[in-house]
Amino acid sequence: MSLADAAREYAATHKQLFNEQLIELVRIPSVSAESQHKNDVKRAAEWIARDLQNAGAENIQVIPTEGHPIIYADWLHAENNAKTVLIYGHYDVQPAAKEDNWNTEPFEPTVIEGVLYARGSSDDKGQMFVHLKALESYLKTSGSLPVNVKFVLEGEEEISSKHLMGFVSENKDLLKADVCIISDTGSQEIEQPAIVTGIRGLTYMEIWVYGPKDDLHSGGFGGIVHNPALGLAQILSKMHNPDNSISIPGFYDDIVNLSEEDRANLARTDVDEQDLKELTGIAATWGEAGFSLRERLGARPTFEVNGILSGWTGEGSKTVLPAKAMAKVSCRLVVNQNPQKIYELVRDYVAQITPPTLRSDVKLLSTGSPALMESDLPEVQAAARAYTRGWGKEPVFMREGGSIPIVVDFQRELQLPVIMMGYGLNSDGAHGPNEHFSLEMFHRGIQTAICFLDEISR
Amino acid sequence: MSLADAAREYAATHKQLFNEQLIELVRIPSVSAESQHKNDVKRAAEWIARDLQNAGAENIQVIPTEGHPIIYADWLHAENNAKTVLIYGHYDVQPAAKEDNWNTEPFEPTVIEGVLYARGSSDDKGQMFVHLKALESYLKTSGSLPVNVKFVLEGEEEISSKHLMGFVSENKDLLKADVCIISDTGSQEIEQPAIVTGIRGLTYMEIWVYGPKDDLHSGGFGGIVHNPALGLAQILSKMHNPDNSISIPGFYDDIVNLSEEDRANLARTDVDEQDLKELTGIAATWGEAGFSLRERLGARPTFEVNGILSGWTGEGSKTVLPAKAMAKVSCRLVVNQNPQKIYELVRDYVAQITPPTLRSDVKLLSTGSPALMESDLPEVQAAARAYTRGWGKEPVFMREGGSIPIVVDFQRELQLPVIMMGYGLNSDGAHGPNEHFSLEMFHRGIQTAICFLDEISR
Repeated sequence: MSLADAAREYAATHKQLFNEQLIELVRIPSVSAESQHKNDVKRAAEWIARDLQNAGAENIQVIPTEGHPIIYADWLHAENNAKTVLIYGHYDVQPAAKEDNWNTEPFEPTVIEGVLYARGSSDDKGQMFVHLKALESYLKTSGSLPVNVKFVLEGEEEISSKHLMGFVSENKDLLKADVCIISDTGSQEIEQPAIVTGIRGLTYMEIWVYGPKDDLHSGGFGGIVHNPALGLAQILSKMHNPDNSISIPGFYDDIVNLSEEDRANLARTDVDEQDLKELTGIAATWGEAGFSLRERLGARPTFEVNGILSGWTGEGSKTVLPAKAMAKVSCRLVVNQNPQKIYELVRDYVAQITPPTLRSDVKLLSTGSPALMESDLPEVQAAARAYTRGWGKEPVFMREGGSIPIVVDFQRELQLPVIMMGYGLNSDGAHGPNEHFSLEMFHRGIQTAICFLDEISR
Repeated sequence: MSLADAAREYAATHKQLFNEQLIELVRIPSVSAESQHKNDVKRAAEWIARDLQNAGAENIQVIPTEGHPIIYADWLHAENNAKTVLIYGHYDVQPAAKEDNWNTEPFEPTVIEGVLYARGSSDDKGQMFVHLKALESYLKTSGSLPVNVKFVLEGEEEISSKHLMGFVSENKDLLKADVCIISDTGSQEIEQPAIVTGIRGLTYMEIWVYGPKDDLHSGGFGGIVHNPALGLAQILSKMHNPDNSISIPGFYDDIVNLSEEDRANLARTDVDEQDLKELTGIAATWGEAGFSLRERLGARPTFEVNGILSGWTGEGSKTVLPAKAMAKVSCRLVVNQNPQKIYELVRDYVAQITPPTLRSDVKLLSTGSPALMESDLPEVQAAARAYTRGWGKEPVFMREGGSIPIVVDFQRELQLPVIMMGYGLNSDGAHGPNEHFSLEMFHRGIQTAICFLDEISR
C-alpha cells in the first residue's frame, strides 16, 4: 500500500474522531478583533500546537507578535530532494453573537444533518484543520510524507493580517518552499470542487464631504447652505453610468480584456441567478451590463459603498443640517489594475465633481493587489489531479470576487506559486450569521489534501 | 408719568440686577432631552416660579406633566374690558458640552464685551425672561398693567413640546386671550429689529432602502447585488433638479406665488452673503436658482438630508455590502403646502424611482404646518409700534426659515393671532456651540415688551 493510500484509509476510519476535534476547536471563540477574546485566540493557538504535536509535526512554535500569535511547524524528512509545501491557514474568526440572526449559539457548535454550525467552522478553522488531519494521517500510518511540509497559521487574518507579512519578510529561509497552499475559499456546490485562479484586489477609502464649520439648524439655514449629506449622495450617485459601469475616468484602462476562451471558462462556473436570490433574499440581480454574473464577480472591478454616516441617526426627528458626511467606499480590482493608481483616480474624480459649495477629501485606508494564476501551471495541475482522486470529481477553475491580499504578498516575498484549494462552499455564511461547514466536505477535503501531497511529489 | 413710562424707568435702573438674575437662570442646565437633567429642568421651573412670585404675578402653578413641568401664572386686574395677552416661552435648552467646540463651559455663563455666553441665553431663557422683567417693571412701579397677562412657559420645547398641546386643549378657558406673544426668533442685526410674519412648516421622514436580507461580504457579492447604501445615494441624488429646485412631482403645486410686493418686502431682510459665509464658514452659498437668499430661506420649501446611516462606520476597513441604508430627511414647507400631502408625494416618488433591484420604505416621523401672518393685522401693528418706541427703530417684517409648530397649534386651538416678537439674533448660535445673547438686546427687549403691553391696550 502506498503512503497516500495508507493515509487515506486512516482518515476514512477516523472521521468521528476528526469531527470531535474540529468541534473542540471551533468552540474556542478566537475572535481576533475583540480584545476581550485575546486569551481565547491564544488558547486556540495552543490547542492547535498540541494537535500538531500529536500528529507528529516538529519544530512547533507559538510565536508571539504584538497582536496574536503565529504558529509555525514542519516535517522535513522527505527523501531525495523532495519538494517542500508551505501550508497557510488562519485560526482567528470574525465576531459573532446569537442576536445577529444566528439560529444557534455561534460558539456552541451544533451539527444538523451532517453540517457543523459554528463561527469559524468554514472560515477558516475547518478548512485549515483539513491539512492538519492530512499530515496526521500520513505520520500515524507510515511515519513519513512524500514531501516536506511547513505550516504557517496566523491569528490575525480577520484583522488584516497585521503582523504576518513582517514575520514572513524576516523569516524567508524558515518559510522557503516550492509551493504554497491556501484553503480559505469556496465552491458553488459540493459535487463541483473549485480551484480559485483569480482573486480581486482592493482599494479601500473614505470619502469626506465638508460644508459649514458646525452643524446648523436646518430651519435657519436649509435652502441657502449646501447640505454635505446631500452632497455626498450626489457625489456617490455619479460613480456609475446608467449601464452600471463605473464612470471614474481611467478606471478601466489597465484591465486585461477577457478572451473568448476566458469567457467560456468563466461560463462553466457562472453564478446561478435563482440560487443567488434564495441565498441573499434579493428580488433581482444587479451589475454591469454586457457581463455574466461570474464575470461581474470575478473578472470586473466594482465601486462599493461599505458604509455612510452623517448628521442625526438616532431616534426621532433632529432638524440638523450636518457639517460633514462620510462614506466608506471600496473598489474590488482585477488584473492589472493598480490599487494605488485607482485611489488616485477616485481622489481626482471626487475633487473634480465636488461643487464649489462644498469641500471634499478622499483618504486611502488599505490596498490589496489582484491576482490571476495560469491554470496550466504544474502546481495547479497537481492540485486538479488531487481533487479528481481525493474528492472524486475534476475541479473547475474559478475567479473569486473576494480579495486575499496574502496571496499576492506570499508570491512576492517568497517567490513561489500560491494555489487556492478551497474546501468550503460560497454559501457557508463566512462573516455572516449561521456560518456552517459540511462535514462531508471536511472529509473529502482531507482525502484531497492527502492526494495533493502525493501528486505534488511526482 | 404713564404706567409704561414708570415701568420703562424701573427697567432702565435695574439692568444690573436683571443681568444677574438671567445669569442665575442660564446657569441651571435644564436640558430636556437628557434624563440626567430631569431635576435641573424642575429646578429651573421652580426658579422661574419664584421670580414670577417676586414680580407680583398671581395663580402661579408649576404643573407636572408626564415629562417636564409647565408653568402657568397670570395677572388679571386690568380695568375696563382690557385685552388679555398670553405670553409663551420655554425654559428648557438644547444639550451642550464644552467639547462640542465651545470656548467656555456652556453652563458657566460668561459675559464678554456685553454678550452673555451660555446655553439657553438666547434660546429661549433670555428672550422669555424679557417678558418676566416687563411684568415686574409694571407691577413694582404702579402695581398695575394696562392689559391682563397670562404666562404659559414650557420645559419641553426642545423635545417637540410633547405635553404642551394636550395641556392647551384641556385648558382653553384658563388660556383664553386676545393675542399670543412668542419671543423665540432672531433678527439679522441689533439695529434692525424684526417681527417674524412667516415660518416654514415641516415634514420629517425616514427613507429606508433594503437590499439583501443580511449584510454580505463585498468581495463575494460586490458587482452582482445592488448595494442599498449606493441605492440610497442614487435616490437622494434624484430629489433636486440641476437648478436645485426639487424634482418631486407635485411638490410646488400648492405654493402661493410671491407677488412683486412680497418680493420687495423680502428684499428688505435679505441675507447678506458675506455675513452668511463668515457665520457658517461655507465657501459659497447654495440654493434654488431664481430666488434671493431670503426667499430661499423664508418663502421656498426645501428637501434636506438630516442624517444618513448604513453599513460599517467605525474605524478602519470592513468590507461589508450592507443589507440596508437609512436617511433622515425633512422638507421645510411654505404656505399652502400640506405636510401630510408632502409626505405622500415623497413616499410615492421614492417608490417610483426605487429600482427593481432594491426595496424602499418612507416613514413619516413628524409634521408642522407653515404659517404666514398679514402684516396689517392690528396686533402686528401694535407690535411694530412697540419696537419703534421701545427698541428705537421701526421693525422689518421677516419670513423665517425655521418651523415653530406651536404657532399654528396655538392659532388653531385658542383662535387668536400669534405674534413673533424676537429679541435675539439669527447668529446667536441657538442649538450650536457658543450660544450667546447680547445684553443690550435683552434690555431693549424689555423696553419693547413694556411698550407692547401699552400699545396693545389702545
